[in-house]
Amino acid sequence: MAFGFELLLKKDPHSQARAGVIHTPHGPIPTPVFAPVGTQATVKTVSPKELRELGASLILANTYHLYLRPGPDTIADLGGLHGFMGWDGPIMTDSGGFQVFSLARLRAVDVTGVTFRSHLDGSEHLLTPEKAIEIQEKLGADIILCLDECPEPLDYDYNVQALERTHHWAERCKQAHTRHDQALFGIVQGGAFADLRRQSAEFITALDFAGYSIGGLSVGEPKEVMHEMLEATVPLLPEDKPRHLLGVGSPEDIFEGVDRGIDIFDCALPTRIGRNGAVFTRPGRLNLRNARYADDPAPIEEGCDCYTCRYFSRAYLRHLIMAKEILGLRLATLHNLHFMLNLLREIREAILAGTFAVLKKEFLTHYEIIPHEARQRSREARSRRQEARSREQEE
Amino acid sequence: MAFGFELLLKKDPHSQARAGVIHTPHGPIPTPVFAPVGTQATVKTVSPKELRELGASLILANTYHLYLRPGPDTIADLGGLHGFMGWDGPIMTDSGGFQVFSLARLRAVDVTGVTFRSHLDGSEHLLTPEKAIEIQEKLGADIILCLDECPEPLDYDYNVQALERTHHWAERCKQAHTRHDQALFGIVQGGAFADLRRQSAEFITALDFAGYSIGGLSVGEPKEVMHEMLEATVPLLPEDKPRHLLGVGSPEDIFEGVDRGIDIFDCALPTRIGRNGAVFTRPGRLNLRNARYADDPAPIEEGCDCYTCRYFSRAYLRHLIMAKEILGLRLATLHNLHFMLNLLREIREAILAGTFAVLKKEFLTHYEIIPHEARQRSREARSRRQEARSREQEE
Repeated sequence: MAFGFELLLKKDPHSQARAGVIHTPHGPIPTPVFAPVGTQATVKTVSPKELRELGASLILANTYHLYLRPGPDTIADLGGLHGFMGWDGPIMTDSGGFQVFSLARLRAVDVTGVTFRSHLDGSEHLLTPEKAIEIQEKLGADIILCLDECPEPLDYDYNVQALERTHHWAERCKQAHTRHDQALFGIVQGGAFADLRRQSAEFITALDFAGYSIGGLSVGEPKEVMHEMLEATVPLLPEDKPRHLLGVGSPEDIFEGVDRGIDIFDCALPTRIGRNGAVFTRPGRLNLRNARYADDPAPIEEGCDCYTCRYFSRAYLRHLIMAKEILGLRLATLHNLHFMLNLLREIREAILAGTFAVLKKEFLTHYEIIPHEARQRSREARSRRQEARSREQEE
Repeated sequence: MAFGFELLLKKDPHSQARAGVIHTPHGPIPTPVFAPVGTQATVKTVSPKELRELGASLILANTYHLYLRPGPDTIADLGGLHGFMGWDGPIMTDSGGFQVFSLARLRAVDVTGVTFRSHLDGSEHLLTPEKAIEIQEKLGADIILCLDECPEPLDYDYNVQALERTHHWAERCKQAHTRHDQALFGIVQGGAFADLRRQSAEFITALDFAGYSIGGLSVGEPKEVMHEMLEATVPLLPEDKPRHLLGVGSPEDIFEGVDRGIDIFDCALPTRIGRNGAVFTRPGRLNLRNARYADDPAPIEEGCDCYTCRYFSRAYLRHLIMAKEILGLRLATLHNLHFMLNLLREIREAILAGTFAVLKKEFLTHYEIIPHEARQRSREARSRRQEARSREQEE
């Protein structure tokens, strides 16, 4: 079956929330949907069988990483991403742009494309819009993205220039796109500026893509700015196409995004924090490293029916994590993915039942949100770690 | 059901090989059996559900590690090892002795017991026979072992002294043992010396244990020495009790052990080499890091019905391992455990069919054995790494 989006089911009367189905050659994606991130053609620690059991209906893989290792030709020869990684459900790839700008050593950005050095071995590469599409066509995901630039959100003048490139690249990506079993999404940028966001939404939608991603949010700005940018952008997107919020997010971000009309979310958060021993519960995150759990016979969350909560205590999970045992990372990740995928199922059911506002209020009343400053600190620590790793590998 | 051993099934007419069943309060163990090692109350990278699916019927956990972290009282409070780790099948624990002598900083060994410093934090501990039993009774495994000393195999005079301690400790362990839902095994030692082995077998069997372990083999000596020691020992063990060869082994060691009358094997080899990218096949080990597998669409082994071989190519596995992805370690481990557990099932069926000699010959004709020198080198490298890690953690 070719790509298609049915907004058949329901629009929430009190918000922009909507429930639909995206059809892809690898099966349907009920929306709103959360896509676990499988950076290197694996959702970290989890097998495709487990993803299926968790009810994942879409995963996102990173073009930048797969381009560098093992390379798009290798993956194409082994049956594309689906065959390579043994996942026969829908897959989305990003364009590689985000990682080039955040992870690689940048050399030059101009209208042609972006020249960078690999974080793995320092080798130099040029990523153009045409190349981004060529790579993604070799990877063979069901949904692919245009090359875009994701700049610091607060520098207006730079955002104006970057946006011009992003728009120009979108035209060239559309032009370069040949595999029509793959749906190409355009990306709206514009930093923290509502006028640029509106301008971008108008430009990109005029190019008529199969769907639209919103990039450059949740990159360090306060949550209110993200909400404001969504409110400036989403109403300008066509109602009959899926809308994707790139790299978002946390449970609270999901509620706010759905409320503002987003259909697709992808984020490494549940897998990343899981490997650090942090797990989601309805009252908020808890960190299993905490000594208070050393003798705690309770599961992570009473009533949760994930594999982890059915069979293992907080005390055992803490032991595994303190002992650096891989099973600990796996079980925390499984719980977090279950939490997110289940939350999205609940959200979708609530939209269908007309009770999304009630669910949102009920959830956010009980869920303790990580404060902005703490998020900033962990974002900065992560970026320092990445830089150190990348320096180490180049040396 | 209490502990019991039925050698009901078959003794091979051409060798000492035998097929039986060990009954335990957590279910039957068909023998000969291979027990995956779950050092820290987890078979590294694998979930209890997967162990069950692999057909594991016995696992071995390490008392030394669990005594130091999270501690026997914590585990007892959480339902013993079975409840703690969510594995409801049979479990065996060692006495802690082997790791004290190989991993901890030794302070003093005398007739009382052994004083050592933890490799985790340098704290000082005294392990006596009574303490080894007390800890293992708290851990609550189905089969527990006497405290023994595992010395360098080639120093005769030292082995004489160590054996005296091991025998004295065995008497005290037997005395200290109170939980009769747990089967206590005696351990035969004696280094590389047939006379000491015989002396030890006689002494230990006179104490009448529920089963017998043979320790101090596969610690660096040539394979012929191991075979000779088994031949000196096993005929002196009672036929109606299970026999366990501690810390062994490789596929070829399993065949030789079964041939000489061994029922139980435990070894970290399949999980340890799996995490390093090495996998078992009928023609021998292969290392997935090898560049020749970068584009190889074949599974690890054609015809293997493990999850890894059913869904994933060598190329994908190599990619995961080169990219340091946990799924790579998991999938290699799963294959290796499947290989070993399946091999033991085949061996058992062959004994029952009277064709063990044929299977052994057929297997060893095709299987390329790692040469003694290469084994020695990797053993030494591992011990240097362990020492470095332990120094690091103390600093």
